[in-house]
Amino acid sequence: MEEVPGSVGTSGGFSLRLGQTLFSSASLLLMSLGVEFYSYTAFCYLVTIMGLVIPWSFTLALVDGYSVLVKCPVRQPGILLIIAAGDWVLSVLTLAAACSTASVVDLLLHSGGSYCPPKCCSRYQLSAAMAFLTWFLSLASALLNLWLLPSL
Amino acid sequence: MEEVPGSVGTSGGFSLRLGQTLFSSASLLLMSLGVEFYSYTAFCYLVTIMGLVIPWSFTLALVDGYSVLVKCPVRQPGILLIIAAGDWVLSVLTLAAACSTASVVDLLLHSGGSYCPPKCCSRYQLSAAMAFLTWFLSLASALLNLWLLPSL
Repeated sequence: MEEVPGSVGTSGGFSLRLGQTLFSSASLLLMSLGVEFYSYTAFCYLVTIMGLVIPWSFTLALVDGYSVLVKCPVRQPGILLIIAAGDWVLSVLTLAAACSTASVVDLLLHSGGSYCPPKCCSRYQLSAAMAFLTWFLSLASALLNLWLLPSL
Repeated sequence: MEEVPGSVGTSGGFSLRLGQTLFSSASLLLMSLGVEFYSYTAFCYLVTIMGLVIPWSFTLALVDGYSVLVKCPVRQPGILLIIAAGDWVLSVLTLAAACSTASVVDLLLHSGGSYCPPKCCSRYQLSAAMAFLTWFLSLASALLNLWLLPSL
């Protein structure tokens, strides 16, 4: 059986999961710390999705780290199918959240300064950028796991 | 070689392409006819993406219709790879456009009536819904073509 770099149970997969956890935590913190995010639907959605992505990525980072340490990767097709499906769903949801946040921030920036003090808006922008990075890493994980699936 | 229903060159694929063309045209028309869409970045983005999706889906609908009529489906791996990759890219872009439009419309609706007369806003909402339907059909095409690819 071939080894796909970046799939479940490899050091590449561990780095991808670690990156996802870091970027999604940064996005959540930038959005929620001291900023009144709950007045906009798109920002609430981003916070909800990041609250789903963080535990998912963190758990899989632990699994990958353990697999690398004991040199015994997960190879049950059922488990891999669940992981690949979860990755796909979360990657689509993350893209939706990132796009919504980015478009609302853009609208707030261009509708004049009354809605959004400059300091807050740059924090929202950074949060959207972090969400896009999370999406990118999550898509990479999903693609690599899907690639691994038929070889089992 | 097995036949995947809904992939390139089948009557299912033809229906999917026809649905994509219809929904994306409806979305473009609802957004652009008599409404000042160019003042919002998200709406301009939706119009751009729909302008890409319509010719793509229409061309592939013609190809599928021709294949069904002459009973000679396209089976060159190179061409199928290009179609599958194009479907994936357009489906991601359509999802991004639909989410951006939906979140901006939601923001305009809840920020008070000064920005958006009720008649315009319901048209924007319909346009976003049509974009989501386009995304759904486009994702189905992309998944079915990706499924067909390894069997060649």
